Amino acid sequence: MTTGLSASQRAIQARGQPVSELMSQALANQDLISLAAGFVDQVSLPVEPVRVAVQKVLADDVTACQALQYGTTCGDEPLRRAILEMAILADGQSAAGKSPTVDQVVLTAGSNQLLHLVAESLLDPGDIVICANPSYFVFLGILDYLGVRAVGVDVDAEGMLPGQLDETLQQLEQVGDLDRVKAVYLVPYFDNPAGITMSTERGGEILEVAQRRSGDHRIHIIVDEAYRSLRYEGEDVPSIRSLDLEGQTVIVAGTFSKSFSPGIRVGWGILPSHLVEPVLDQKGNIDFGSPYFNQRVMREVILSDHYPDHVATIRESYRQKRDAMLAAADEHFSSIPGVRWHRPCGGLYVWLELPEGLDSGPGGKLWLSAIDEGMFYVPGQYCFPSGGPGVRYNYIRLSYGVQSPERINEGIAALARAIRRTLG
Amino acid sequence: MTTGLSASQRAIQARGQPVSELMSQALANQDLISLAAGFVDQVSLPVEPVRVAVQKVLADDVTACQALQYGTTCGDEPLRRAILEMAILADGQSAAGKSPTVDQVVLTAGSNQLLHLVAESLLDPGDIVICANPSYFVFLGILDYLGVRAVGVDVDAEGMLPGQLDETLQQLEQVGDLDRVKAVYLVPYFDNPAGITMSTERGGEILEVAQRRSGDHRIHIIVDEAYRSLRYEGEDVPSIRSLDLEGQTVIVAGTFSKSFSPGIRVGWGILPSHLVEPVLDQKGNIDFGSPYFNQRVMREVILSDHYPDHVATIRESYRQKRDAMLAAADEHFSSIPGVRWHRPCGGLYVWLELPEGLDSGPGGKLWLSAIDEGMFYVPGQYCFPSGGPGVRYNYIRLSYGVQSPERINEGIAALARAIRRTLG
Repeated sequence: MTTGLSASQRAIQARGQPVSELMSQALANQDLISLAAGFVDQVSLPVEPVRVAVQKVLADDVTACQALQYGTTCGDEPLRRAILEMAILADGQSAAGKSPTVDQVVLTAGSNQLLHLVAESLLDPGDIVICANPSYFVFLGILDYLGVRAVGVDVDAEGMLPGQLDETLQQLEQVGDLDRVKAVYLVPYFDNPAGITMSTERGGEILEVAQRRSGDHRIHIIVDEAYRSLRYEGEDVPSIRSLDLEGQTVIVAGTFSKSFSPGIRVGWGILPSHLVEPVLDQKGNIDFGSPYFNQRVMREVILSDHYPDHVATIRESYRQKRDAMLAAADEHFSSIPGVRWHRPCGGLYVWLELPEGLDSGPGGKLWLSAIDEGMFYVPGQYCFPSGGPGVRYNYIRLSYGVQSPERINEGIAALARAIRRTLG
Repeated sequence: MTTGLSASQRAIQARGQPVSELMSQALANQDLISLAAGFVDQVSLPVEPVRVAVQKVLADDVTACQALQYGTTCGDEPLRRAILEMAILADGQSAAGKSPTVDQVVLTAGSNQLLHLVAESLLDPGDIVICANPSYFVFLGILDYLGVRAVGVDVDAEGMLPGQLDETLQQLEQVGDLDRVKAVYLVPYFDNPAGITMSTERGGEILEVAQRRSGDHRIHIIVDEAYRSLRYEGEDVPSIRSLDLEGQTVIVAGTFSKSFSPGIRVGWGILPSHLVEPVLDQKGNIDFGSPYFNQRVMREVILSDHYPDHVATIRESYRQKRDAMLAAADEHFSSIPGVRWHRPCGGLYVWLELPEGLDSGPGGKLWLSAIDEGMFYVPGQYCFPSGGPGVRYNYIRLSYGVQSPERINEGIAALARAIRRTLG
């Protein structure tokens, strides 16, 4: 008789997400100011809108029983319709493409689950996904987990560089790997982590490259719009989806987790029609539909007037936090040569570049000094795909989602002290 | 430029779950009496308990905000603790094994998600899982989807035959496949579909065989206890988990979907300690935790006095439905030679054996006659693993979960007419 666990290949690939380990270490010290996790602001969570919506759902026994029963694998149709209408409305007259139908909208428990289902539907081990350099580290984790190669393409202030994307695909073609490239992953609105918003023009260029370079297999574009509603200045720009004339290339992932409540956790996908069945087949095996009660509550929220009001409230709250972080950065970092950052128009993140050679990684001097000074952050190294230009160590992701303006200022001051100490 | 979807291997394996296609065809006809889906009774859903629990969760702003925020990947600790206490209490003095700790309890959106996470953690393509013959078809679907072979072992009135399990494992060893056998899957309480409840003695025998035959890799036992609370007669029997002295072999999957509400959808696993990290690593990639609001609502329900009352209510309701189905079967089937069924002590299913040679499959004479007579069912063929004794076509799964006693009687009468017509 034996034995220990013989884990699956996937279990081995899923092992030890470095970020989560790091975070649990740091979180064990309650006094530290976390500018790390992308959690949402606790005090502006929509208590009253949820009370009203839940009350409506549970008001009469018939409606209540429906909400407490199983839903369908694709999710509540009125909510899917409302999401689609909001998307089409937001993309306005620039929508040159074919409008998707309600059948192309699938509800999930958060957008991460949608990203996972799409990845499962498209990707085999050894396949390649092109990601911005840097990218959302949880998505890079999914790719690792699936045994998929992430290849980075650099960004400028408008997002992924189409020329470098084109060259990368050309190089992959030269080594016979183009058919393994299944998708480009983008966070076009207030990118996680870089804070960049992709211009419509840039989105069109990326789309053009992906479509032109599609070989035997289509190169899809996975557009993660989790932060789209969290804009603090400037005008919304149309989704890249609206530029996709055939509607066959762009996959949109969205969520109410950031704009409403991660505890209710309703996300969605707007999928090219050929992907609907594969995604639902996967979902049918995993959970045959996300909790229906939550979808019914979100439907009430969306169909009421509370949603835009709530979004307006949290935008104002996050704007103040962003301004606090930018002001603190101006105050504490400006005099440190080689420290640079981008001014995000929305979202939850400021991406900090440190002087060349200064390593922000866990266990390093800066990391330990920062903890010693009373704060912690996400080391930027986790945000770089291993393929392409490669991992860089002199970056930091800062989030202003959770802390108050005062604590944000304290956290940034502590980080500045840590940087000065480390530079010596 | 190209192209259609190049689906992943998994997407190909997930394609066209035959049961879902069948069900959507049949459901399109609203007048038919469905004795097919394992849905729960609509009218006995816990509207009032949910009202009370939600009201408590949302009563003050601080508690409400917590419930609307992200939870952790493993889920709400007080609820996990309550689930563990209920499990230990239910298994009583017979619990010879080491009691698991709260760290070994993981919350999911329904037990199916737990089954999926466990399967992902243990199984590689080409691996083997031993299943009862017949088994829960959705789990067989997960195995197909993962490229895993399901090998059946026959059952008698006490569940899976340990002698046949032993022989099967011996045969697999002889052909060099024993190391590919990673688990035995059981539904010990009111089995889906066969309605059988496994005796404690039988559970111990199965456990003994699995442990003795574990080669280089441990053969886990996945114990799907989804229906455990739905007992209508006799005494609860201890979980096989409580017989697992080392606590390293048995994986329990449970859920409040059947005993409370599938719309709230909180399930759980009680895992051997070595499996906790792999399962959480998978979950970290997929959704980093199920909706927290639902967990908080379930916590309130469980910590209140409403839960046992509600379970008592639905037991009574389902008992009446079961009795209605058994009475209807006695009335309408007794005079048809070769039609046999088991009297379930709980759960939602009656498993009907038809005369040898009578094929219940979709598109066949009986299926079409049944629809013509006004009812539909789950063809038993979907419940048989392809390996082992193989698929049998003269079985039907009947569910009494959804319909009223009157409709159950009508449905059974219609099925009896269809069987007579088909027998000619």
